[in-house]
Amino acid sequence: MQVFLKSSHRSLLATPLLGFRSIPRAAFTSSAFLKWDGGVSMVQGASRGIGLQFVKQLLEKTDRGHVIATCRNPNGATGLLDLKNKFAERLEILHLDVTVESTIEASATSVREKYGSLNLLINASGILSIPNVLQPETTLNKVEKSSLMLAYEINAVGPILVIKHMWPLLKVGGGTGTERDVAVVANLSARVGSIGDNRLGGWHSYRSSKTALNQLTKTVSVEFARRKDPVICILLHPGTVDTDLSRPFQRNVPDGKLFTKEFSVQKLLGIINKAKSHDNGKFFAWDGQEIPW
Amino acid sequence: MQVFLKSSHRSLLATPLLGFRSIPRAAFTSSAFLKWDGGVSMVQGASRGIGLQFVKQLLEKTDRGHVIATCRNPNGATGLLDLKNKFAERLEILHLDVTVESTIEASATSVREKYGSLNLLINASGILSIPNVLQPETTLNKVEKSSLMLAYEINAVGPILVIKHMWPLLKVGGGTGTERDVAVVANLSARVGSIGDNRLGGWHSYRSSKTALNQLTKTVSVEFARRKDPVICILLHPGTVDTDLSRPFQRNVPDGKLFTKEFSVQKLLGIINKAKSHDNGKFFAWDGQEIPW
Repeated sequence: MQVFLKSSHRSLLATPLLGFRSIPRAAFTSSAFLKWDGGVSMVQGASRGIGLQFVKQLLEKTDRGHVIATCRNPNGATGLLDLKNKFAERLEILHLDVTVESTIEASATSVREKYGSLNLLINASGILSIPNVLQPETTLNKVEKSSLMLAYEINAVGPILVIKHMWPLLKVGGGTGTERDVAVVANLSARVGSIGDNRLGGWHSYRSSKTALNQLTKTVSVEFARRKDPVICILLHPGTVDTDLSRPFQRNVPDGKLFTKEFSVQKLLGIINKAKSHDNGKFFAWDGQEIPW
Repeated sequence: MQVFLKSSHRSLLATPLLGFRSIPRAAFTSSAFLKWDGGVSMVQGASRGIGLQFVKQLLEKTDRGHVIATCRNPNGATGLLDLKNKFAERLEILHLDVTVESTIEASATSVREKYGSLNLLINASGILSIPNVLQPETTLNKVEKSSLMLAYEINAVGPILVIKHMWPLLKVGGGTGTERDVAVVANLSARVGSIGDNRLGGWHSYRSSKTALNQLTKTVSVEFARRKDPVICILLHPGTVDTDLSRPFQRNVPDGKLFTKEFSVQKLLGIINKAKSHDNGKFFAWDGQEIPW
C-alpha cells in the first residue's frame, strides 16, 4: 500500500525557491532566529515532505538543541538517515504510527527517559490519497464510508493522540532551555479544512478530517489555557507545497502558488517562532494570516 | 448496549412548554403553515426525542402529506407505533441504521418504489454518550480513539451516507407537490460543534463529530448549488432539549434554557419552512440566528 503522506517527497533534492523575493533570508542565517535553540523538538511524520523539511531546518538553522523525528518506518526513511549521518548527536529517529496508539506511548516513554521534556511538537503526518484505497472525492456519489473513516483516523485522531501522550513532556518543557515562554504544538492543517472558506466542495474525507483536527486542536488549546499550562497549540496551513501529497493535484495550482518545501517550512517556522500565548488555538496560513474556521 | 440518541426520550408523554410566551402558537394551527403540506418527508432517527417529535408535528400540523420515519429498531419504537395507529395512511416506519450502509440503501429503494421522491429529509440521529462505552470527555487525558471514531461514524458519516442515497429522490422531489421551490435536507448539529464558539473545551468526540458534520454538509451544499439541483441543505442547533441525550448533562443548564422537544421542534420546523436557496449550507440555532463555524 503506497501512502501519500504530507510528510512525503520522493526526491530529497532541494527544490529551488520559486522566486519569493520577499523572504527575509538574512533572518534565517542567524542562530538566534530560532527561539527554541537549545530545546527539544519532535516532528511527527518526518520521513518525507514537509515533516522532513522541518527536521532539516531545525537542525541546520542552529547548532544546538535536539530533534526527535518520528515516522512509521525508520529503516526506510532515507532522508532522515542522511540527516542522522550529519547530525548524529542532535537527531533521534523513533518509530511512531499514529494509527497504533502503543507506538505513540512508546515514543513518549523513550523521550521522557532520554530528554525528560519537549519544547516543540510538530504534527506533520497527514493523508490525502492512497491509490485504490482513498481518492479525494469529486462528488457525493463517490463518498465511501471507509475513506471518511480512514482520513479521520489518520488526520484528526492521530495528532490528538500524539498530543495526549506528549502533553506531560510539554508541560515539563514549557520554554525551559529556550528563549520562549511556552512550549508550542503546531498541527499541520489545510485551508480546505475551513468551512467558511469552502466554495469548491469535494474532497469530503480530507476536508472533514482537517476540520475535525481544527476543532480538536481548539478544544485542547482551551484546556491548556484553563490549566495555565506553559503550552500553546496552533494550526498551520502550509500552502500548496510540492510534495507527494499534492503531486496528483498540482495541475490546477495557479502559477507561483506551488511552494517548495523549503519556502513553506521557512514561513511556518517563522510563525511558530513568534507564536505567543494569545495565539493559542489559532489557525494560520503560511503567510501569517488567520484563516476562518 | 444502551445508546442515548438525540432522537430519544424515555417518556412519550408530552412535556409542557416551559413558559415560552413568544411562540406564535396561532401560526401552528393553520395547515398552510407547513409549505411541504402534501409532500413526502423522511425523518431519520425517529424513534425517540427530537426525531420522534418531528414526525409527530409533521403529521399533526397538516392533514396531507406522507412521513417516513426511520429507526434502528422499528418493533421497539413504541412512540412511532402509537402514531402509526393514528396516522396509518400517512406514516411509514422503516428500518435504518446509519452505521450499516445497506440499510440506508434499502430504505432509499423502498421510498423510491412507494413514493418516487422526497421533499424533506431530516437527519435527527446522533450520539453523545453510551454508558461504559462513550462518555463526553472532561479532559484530553480521557480521550480514547474508540470514542472519537464511534462518534464520527454515527454523527458525521451516517447522515452524509443518508443524503448520498436519498439524493436522487430529493432531486426528483424538489418542491413538487408542496408550496416550496426546493427540497430541504436538515441535519441536526449542535452549537458545541462550532469551533469559533468553543470557549469551554471538553467533549472532544462529540464536538469534533458535529464539526465534521458541519463541514460535510457545507461540502454537499456546494455541490447541490453547483449542479442547480432543487435541493438545499441546512444545519440546525436545537438548543439544549430535554431528551435522553441531554439528561445526564442537564445539571448545568441555566434556568429557562432547557427546552421541551415540542418547543424546539416547533422552532426548527419554522426555520425549515422558511428556508430558501440563499440559506443553502448555513448553520442556524433554534431561534434562527446563524452560528459561526
